[in-house]
Amino acid sequence: MIVIAGVQTPEEHIHAIVEVIEKEGLQAHVSRGSDRTIIGLIGSVEPKLAEHLRQMKGVENVVKISKSYKLASRDFHPENTVISINGVNIGGGELVIMGGPCAVESATQIDEIAALVKAAGAQVLRGGAFKPRTGPYSFQGTGVEGLIMMAEAGKKHDLLTITEVMTPEYVDICAEYADILQVGTRNMQNFDLLRKLGTCGKPVLLKRGFSSTYDEFLNAAEYILAGGNPNVMLCERGIRTFETYTRNTLDLSAIPVLQQLSHLPVIADPSHGTGRRELVVPMTKASVAAGADGLIIEMHTDPDNSMTGDGVQSLFPDQFADLLKDLELLAPAVGKTFHAPSTIS
Amino acid sequence: MIVIAGVQTPEEHIHAIVEVIEKEGLQAHVSRGSDRTIIGLIGSVEPKLAEHLRQMKGVENVVKISKSYKLASRDFHPENTVISINGVNIGGGELVIMGGPCAVESATQIDEIAALVKAAGAQVLRGGAFKPRTGPYSFQGTGVEGLIMMAEAGKKHDLLTITEVMTPEYVDICAEYADILQVGTRNMQNFDLLRKLGTCGKPVLLKRGFSSTYDEFLNAAEYILAGGNPNVMLCERGIRTFETYTRNTLDLSAIPVLQQLSHLPVIADPSHGTGRRELVVPMTKASVAAGADGLIIEMHTDPDNSMTGDGVQSLFPDQFADLLKDLELLAPAVGKTFHAPSTIS
Amino acid sequence: MIVIAGVQTPEEHIHAIVEVIEKEGLQAHVSRGSDRTIIGLIGSVEPKLAEHLRQMKGVENVVKISKSYKLASRDFHPENTVISINGVNIGGGELVIMGGPCAVESATQIDEIAALVKAAGAQVLRGGAFKPRTGPYSFQGTGVEGLIMMAEAGKKHDLLTITEVMTPEYVDICAEYADILQVGTRNMQNFDLLRKLGTCGKPVLLKRGFSSTYDEFLNAAEYILAGGNPNVMLCERGIRTFETYTRNTLDLSAIPVLQQLSHLPVIADPSHGTGRRELVVPMTKASVAAGADGLIIEMHTDPDNSMTGDGVQSLFPDQFADLLKDLELLAPAVGKTFHAPSTIS
Amino acid sequence: MIVIAGVQTPEEHIHAIVEVIEKEGLQAHVSRGSDRTIIGLIGSVEPKLAEHLRQMKGVENVVKISKSYKLASRDFHPENTVISINGVNIGGGELVIMGGPCAVESATQIDEIAALVKAAGAQVLRGGAFKPRTGPYSFQGTGVEGLIMMAEAGKKHDLLTITEVMTPEYVDICAEYADILQVGTRNMQNFDLLRKLGTCGKPVLLKRGFSSTYDEFLNAAEYILAGGNPNVMLCERGIRTFETYTRNTLDLSAIPVLQQLSHLPVIADPSHGTGRRELVVPMTKASVAAGADGLIIEMHTDPDNSMTGDGVQSLFPDQFADLLKDLELLAPAVGKTFHAPSTIS
Repeated sequence: MIVIAGVQTPEEHIHAIVEVIEKEGLQAHVSRGSDRTIIGLIGSVEPKLAEHLRQMKGVENVVKISKSYKLASRDFHPENTVISINGVNIGGGELVIMGGPCAVESATQIDEIAALVKAAGAQVLRGGAFKPRTGPYSFQGTGVEGLIMMAEAGKKHDLLTITEVMTPEYVDICAEYADILQVGTRNMQNFDLLRKLGTCGKPVLLKRGFSSTYDEFLNAAEYILAGGNPNVMLCERGIRTFETYTRNTLDLSAIPVLQQLSHLPVIADPSHGTGRRELVVPMTKASVAAGADGLIIEMHTDPDNSMTGDGVQSLFPDQFADLLKDLELLAPAVGKTFHAPSTIS
Repeated sequence: MIVIAGVQTPEEHIHAIVEVIEKEGLQAHVSRGSDRTIIGLIGSVEPKLAEHLRQMKGVENVVKISKSYKLASRDFHPENTVISINGVNIGGGELVIMGGPCAVESATQIDEIAALVKAAGAQVLRGGAFKPRTGPYSFQGTGVEGLIMMAEAGKKHDLLTITEVMTPEYVDICAEYADILQVGTRNMQNFDLLRKLGTCGKPVLLKRGFSSTYDEFLNAAEYILAGGNPNVMLCERGIRTFETYTRNTLDLSAIPVLQQLSHLPVIADPSHGTGRRELVVPMTKASVAAGADGLIIEMHTDPDNSMTGDGVQSLFPDQFADLLKDLELLAPAVGKTFHAPSTIS
Repeated sequence: MIVIAGVQTPEEHIHAIVEVIEKEGLQAHVSRGSDRTIIGLIGSVEPKLAEHLRQMKGVENVVKISKSYKLASRDFHPENTVISINGVNIGGGELVIMGGPCAVESATQIDEIAALVKAAGAQVLRGGAFKPRTGPYSFQGTGVEGLIMMAEAGKKHDLLTITEVMTPEYVDICAEYADILQVGTRNMQNFDLLRKLGTCGKPVLLKRGFSSTYDEFLNAAEYILAGGNPNVMLCERGIRTFETYTRNTLDLSAIPVLQQLSHLPVIADPSHGTGRRELVVPMTKASVAAGADGLIIEMHTDPDNSMTGDGVQSLFPDQFADLLKDLELLAPAVGKTFHAPSTIS
Repeated sequence: MIVIAGVQTPEEHIHAIVEVIEKEGLQAHVSRGSDRTIIGLIGSVEPKLAEHLRQMKGVENVVKISKSYKLASRDFHPENTVISINGVNIGGGELVIMGGPCAVESATQIDEIAALVKAAGAQVLRGGAFKPRTGPYSFQGTGVEGLIMMAEAGKKHDLLTITEVMTPEYVDICAEYADILQVGTRNMQNFDLLRKLGTCGKPVLLKRGFSSTYDEFLNAAEYILAGGNPNVMLCERGIRTFETYTRNTLDLSAIPVLQQLSHLPVIADPSHGTGRRELVVPMTKASVAAGADGLIIEMHTDPDNSMTGDGVQSLFPDQFADLLKDLELLAPAVGKTFHAPSTIS
């Protein structure tokens, strides 16, 4: 349920409303927008309470929300969430590009790639230290060592960093070294991991499960938000369909749908979404035109020898730089801003 | 199998090659490009013939094509196919917009909509006269009368027309009245219909079956091409997946994939691809950014009372006009041209 | 809407009810069961008519049916439909086996296979004369010649015959030569074909579209029933999913679901449903245990050289015979009857 | 790679082979069958080693295995794995039934249901203490208390117990109280959980991810086996498809496929596989006919008031007992044994 108050409702009236809600043992979440203030209630609301709230000063309306997710819903929080990290604003009109290798392989590799990512105009360095692999005999990542290498490369090249965390046990150490924690598609409904991320103190990029509905996706985000962490990005990374020519089917409708149902920023991953290098460029552009707030794109200096075997979906550095140049032209045509340094040729 | 000849190979050498091929009872399809000429062979090729061709004058190479479709393949026909109809060039860099109602309901309705479609800058009027309906008790279209109404509206407003044909029996009459014949998603593998369209003399827009792979899609196009009709457009209109929030999942990767595998123009249908009016605008833009050669978009002056009940996916006229205005800005950012008349505000 | 009358309602009362309905320009379908009589109405019913019917003699209740299909619905026709053809009763408790090759290749081939099919205990000979093929350069069937060969083999070995018809134009000739006409999965929503089959005078086996819902499937059956042909069998033949190890995913839940929603017999096709010979035996048994009224199974004397290349899903003759022996044991354990002649070892 | 030795190869020769393998730093897994002994190698094998092994005493052949999973593969372990727990043998020809509520709700509830489960002839009591729920505000299970209640009910009624574990942290306590640990569909690729289960000392039932391929499923099992736990059961519980009438699509082909690719027992879950009580009975029978080694079925004494809201897929106690009676008849018709006590009527 939400309580809608006028934007000019004095603070004391809002305070009184919250007090009444909390006295009933419910949670109240206040979201101040430019034209109204929303107080969201979480918990089972008695009709008597709804009636009482409706008659309080400043209250314009009391509306039942039937969605199972609350904090993730735009009904609860009508304004866009903008996640600000060291001057990078995700969800606020600036296109945010996260680039880098599938896996952190060595200090040299990640440093070299970080330099190229930065030079091309990206704001965030991606790289996996803990890798989820289908079989137990595949390369499982460089672990904590990889984390440290990436943190150093990020610092040196003035890039934010994002890395995947796979299990509650490693959330703290990942949060120590990375700026953004990523939940992979296979873990979207690893509820204990989500709960732990609710209290980790760092922004989280939550990837959509490869066969999860929008509703399940937003409920997974709700686990993190309900734990106290408001900084969640939703990432469309392709769904599993009957078509096998592409690794996944990048569901770009997810971008406007999620932006309509939720206030959280939406990021697209055309690398996993297609699994083919030659499709990453057109699908990045399509993602931007569909309204994505950011992109996460694989780039590798030697994709044919990448340790995860995922090189086939990684751009070469010059393709990555050219793409970002193109985005500088495309972004304003759809109301976004993006700047690619001209020193890249 | 294809024979590759240099671009400056004299006509008489090409002629000699074709003669050799046809003497063996095979078909030869000549495709002249800017940097080479391709002669495609259809039929079972003996190794001896391949060897003989390889040594003929002008032949640079003889290459085996393993794909099951031949004429639809870019290997056979490296240059883009551009379909020219009354000055509209589909597949040639100009963005082509097909707009109109789901069904032709009356002469007044289609005339009114045609005027709006034209004024907004679209080149083609869409409208169904024969409607494929899930159940037998639903409105099945206005039939031949509808065809005639649409032809008149198209003529009056200087628009090309496109309409769906559902059965071989009606191909001739549809070809008489419409400029482009459409094969619906449920009929993509109606092989007798495809065969008949191979000889109809009009361009065909072939919609992808809602659960058909790219390979099956191109093989369906091959049926039409093999019948002698080179003017086929491929239309991505959404595939069926587990996600039910959208009517279908618009698979935009299909656009660059099909353009890579084939030389035929690719059209996107964001109306059926999403089934929701509010998603048509962002997904149209995403389609253009992904490289679509054209779009087919439902627009209705009174969508809530459309006779097919599909109004929920139809744009209102002003939304349609605003969208085309936006495309004027977006198209050049991805290398396409499009002009929306400024008389629309 | 349906009108429910007691089983002992005199014929004249039923007659009067039908008269009232037809006077309003609606169709009335009378279905007499062991415990009640159902009169189904097709068309738009005024509330006044419903009220009038409710008060007529013999009427126990008047119930609104919200499903889009009517004649196919069990609400309209509570008793099982049993289709009787020359002493074979489909849908009546006897397990019906349809066996034979993917395609009729020659008179010798179909005669040889018919003898084996009969000896094993099957009641129906299957075989395609017109073959729907993904690409235009594949073997397209032996056509009318094949039809005639199969009719002769069926007659000689005292087997019913079933064959696929792909286009309205060929319905009459197929109906002349075969006992049952089959609609293939790609044509489930070829509405002109379905309409034509509504008046063909022969029983129809309608295969589920490989991505069609139960609701769409029953609406497709409704097209045939609405045309006046009450003898429709529904065939589950596998749906398209993300799993590619099997050619399709045989959805056996379809069997009890369809039997609950509809009164029509349900046949399973484990050959196309799995695409792998080694899975046909266990999935045939599973189909029987799920309640199938019959099975359609591919068998070939030389599967490795079948002209359609589908041999990989065809049983060898001895596997077919062994399977039918096993069914003789299994059928009674799930309330069905089946007899496999003991002369087969 | 596998080394194949004759069944009569003396122990000392086998021992010598293993020694050679382990000296190269590889793992050797010996699997003794009735007609041959297989020594499976895990790790990267040099051609020289293969050649050396081929010439050792007792070696009949050395074969390369291309599958990414090894220990789970039937190539490595040709005989069926039979998991014996307190006299119940899973995978050995006896049909094993696991029954009980979705969630353990109270000591009284689980005791009452355990009595009914036992009386009907089942061997294992199922019940969730930790529940994976789509949203954070739903009932999340009774936790450790629930574990203890179920352990007591199992002991009292002489039933094995199975319960789900969701996170590595809880593996030890679940292993203390339950006889079989279950991995839910959302956790099939929770690799840290799988690794922990590799050393838990208890048999594991691994549910197929709702959109996971057979290959991914067997690789997930490989994680547990590779950790040292040989007692893994595979559970088909329905996959996600376009059809929404059923909660999932129970993919019964998975049963013969998995039994062919692997030696591990296969269990079917018709409750989650269909999500509808009325389909559980036919689909249980179909699972048995397809060759399932066991079933896991939800049963509740008051399904309409179950705390998880999953009651709609739970059988009533008398349905459960009747079904097991029917299985007593069906099992021998497909080569399995099962006994339902006659005291149940």
